[in-house]
Amino acid sequence: MKAEIIAVGSELLLGQIANTNAKFISRQLSELGIDVYYHTVVGDNAARLKEAIRVAENRADCIIFSGGLGPTKDDLTKETIAAHLGVELTLDKKALEFIEEYFTKHGREMTENNRKQALVLEGSHVLVNDNGMAPGMLLERGSYTYILLPGPPKELEPMFQHEAKPYLAKKLGKGSKIISHVLRFYGIGEAELEVRLQDLLDEQTNPTLAPLAADGEVTLRITAKADTEEAAWTMINEKKEEVLAIVGEYCYGVDDDSLPSKLVDMLVKNNLTIAAAESLTAGLFQATLAEIPGVGTALAGGVVTYTEQAKIEQLGISVEIIKEHSVVSSECAAAMAFNVREKFGTEIGVGLTGAAGPDAHGSEPAGTVWIGISIGQEPPLTYLLQLSGSRNTNRLRTVKFTCSYLMRNLIEKGYKN
Amino acid sequence: MKAEIIAVGSELLLGQIANTNAKFISRQLSELGIDVYYHTVVGDNAARLKEAIRVAENRADCIIFSGGLGPTKDDLTKETIAAHLGVELTLDKKALEFIEEYFTKHGREMTENNRKQALVLEGSHVLVNDNGMAPGMLLERGSYTYILLPGPPKELEPMFQHEAKPYLAKKLGKGSKIISHVLRFYGIGEAELEVRLQDLLDEQTNPTLAPLAADGEVTLRITAKADTEEAAWTMINEKKEEVLAIVGEYCYGVDDDSLPSKLVDMLVKNNLTIAAAESLTAGLFQATLAEIPGVGTALAGGVVTYTEQAKIEQLGISVEIIKEHSVVSSECAAAMAFNVREKFGTEIGVGLTGAAGPDAHGSEPAGTVWIGISIGQEPPLTYLLQLSGSRNTNRLRTVKFTCSYLMRNLIEKGYKN
Repeated sequence: MKAEIIAVGSELLLGQIANTNAKFISRQLSELGIDVYYHTVVGDNAARLKEAIRVAENRADCIIFSGGLGPTKDDLTKETIAAHLGVELTLDKKALEFIEEYFTKHGREMTENNRKQALVLEGSHVLVNDNGMAPGMLLERGSYTYILLPGPPKELEPMFQHEAKPYLAKKLGKGSKIISHVLRFYGIGEAELEVRLQDLLDEQTNPTLAPLAADGEVTLRITAKADTEEAAWTMINEKKEEVLAIVGEYCYGVDDDSLPSKLVDMLVKNNLTIAAAESLTAGLFQATLAEIPGVGTALAGGVVTYTEQAKIEQLGISVEIIKEHSVVSSECAAAMAFNVREKFGTEIGVGLTGAAGPDAHGSEPAGTVWIGISIGQEPPLTYLLQLSGSRNTNRLRTVKFTCSYLMRNLIEKGYKN
Repeated sequence: MKAEIIAVGSELLLGQIANTNAKFISRQLSELGIDVYYHTVVGDNAARLKEAIRVAENRADCIIFSGGLGPTKDDLTKETIAAHLGVELTLDKKALEFIEEYFTKHGREMTENNRKQALVLEGSHVLVNDNGMAPGMLLERGSYTYILLPGPPKELEPMFQHEAKPYLAKKLGKGSKIISHVLRFYGIGEAELEVRLQDLLDEQTNPTLAPLAADGEVTLRITAKADTEEAAWTMINEKKEEVLAIVGEYCYGVDDDSLPSKLVDMLVKNNLTIAAAESLTAGLFQATLAEIPGVGTALAGGVVTYTEQAKIEQLGISVEIIKEHSVVSSECAAAMAFNVREKFGTEIGVGLTGAAGPDAHGSEPAGTVWIGISIGQEPPLTYLLQLSGSRNTNRLRTVKFTCSYLMRNLIEKGYKN
């Protein structure tokens, strides 16, 4: 099966958003072993969309559309496909009920144009939208499979994963399976990882190994092709062991793991509680931990002390520390971590202070960050970061480094990983 | 002039990266008034790239390529174009010198395959690469303009801006200008916005109006085409006034504005200080405000009270309120807002409490959120949200609604907008 992805939306051609849907769908299709030879982006224009469909039908047999299923007049994907294929649009009662419920639930009145979203291609299999109103569609016609997905990623992604992907997997039968497994590293650069894995990278055929750097992390994607899923996984696991024997100390997780999710896992597993005092991150560390369901037993809370006054009054940081060392200092980070732990009565306290940028803080250049970690009654540990990103990159990196340093400390202390 | 952008790279078709180059180039072209009707992505495969070029030549006269100019064997963009057009590749001496210098400068030895990067299409204008080794090219051939750019955004972007864009602007002469201006709305759905703007949408020709929903907001893009930038802006501003006369109450900003950036603007402009007490958002509201440089004079800080105990001990929420109304209640949100304002001595206090999900909080279903706003000594105001997204969507929406409600309150109280 050869697939082509057609994204519909003038906002893409005007450069207002990037085509992240094609990235998502491509990745999913590659897991299924379906080749994607082209992506096309076309605007909200029926004639040009028709032309794109004609071109795609010459080079693919599975055509996946994203966008243009909404209630407004410039949403014309299904109308254009209907005209192109000579198929009627019919009202889907379940979809209409769902849309009506959506409005009732949100206490808003349903306008007439929203009914348009319940129109589907006759003979299509309707794909449920759990995160929006426009249903998706899947239509088999001659040797072609047409899949219509809504544009917003938060609607498209679960719909593809829960509805379209299983359908395609079933249709493919027991063909060759491609499985990918991602190892996640922190504290090592892409170039260094590559040097240390050079022999493995040179000899790779199947499984393949692909290092990629993103957001301060490095990932290594191991992809195996085999006749069965089991066989692919055996190959992946063997290669994984070889990799971890070399750079295992930097590997913090796999696949959809994140540093915060692994940290929360560890905290919950070890019955540890945590509190944080945040300055430059202003709550981002705690907010990031709180993305993980189940964090409630570990995260007590904390304080955001954005100003000097708040550090003194709300957290009891001594005026002397600030005068002598400034708020961007090891001493201040240590005191923040220690005091917030005492204040909230938790096992762990974290203190984050620094100059996020764009401005320096006194003599401390932008990107200077101190991380304080206080575990029990032991003297707090502190770490200095010298970051060189933008204000918000620096804040995000600070959160990631904090997770990483804290986990390493806990592992060294013998807590369960 | 009609342009098509062809991105070359199998990593795009495998979903490893998104085609952000097309976004960048499109935005630049729209500023020049050049219409982009299609984006195409194709892998590192000569036959399929040729097919993409043939298709593009049928529907565009300016074809812009990104990627495939590097030293490795799978970099074949210029080779394929050379074969397609029957043009030779010749060694560009300046490019070769530049590459040799690059290696000397970085203290690395130049491998033979790097010479390949100095081969350019005969008769082309060579585009200097200030951030990498592969030069770009610009070739006029019959009625077509072919522009070849390197794949890495940090090489492509300056090359396009400094070399290709001025060339195209000159070629266009004083042609038509296309300017887009985005109005941003909150608290109104896309469908409702469209109904209320129906007459304007029906009669649109130039400027055009395009509504778009994303992340709980609705935007309306006004795009005008005129001979000069000034004339385009006059048309946009006239249309904008018509739009705002109808739905102005929901419009919170334009272009790159965000709800948090507008709120921070307002706080700074009016010399107001703010503190927040956060439960379900766990610091996300404060962290979001802190993304905006200059927030330091407005944001004092706040507390994250994730547990009941923290609400009682750290914020002085009375046990009676919690017992009688639970922590997910108007009363609790009001007390959190009031108490954190008093505690931090700010003009404004915000209290956020709710069930982010996936689990309900007692009898309160997931997505039930109370926002408390305390301004000065007046009784706090509270707002109920019934959200239906995922845990993190609900937390993000809560932050956006908080910004929106707080701004409306401040505007009603006569603060400068």
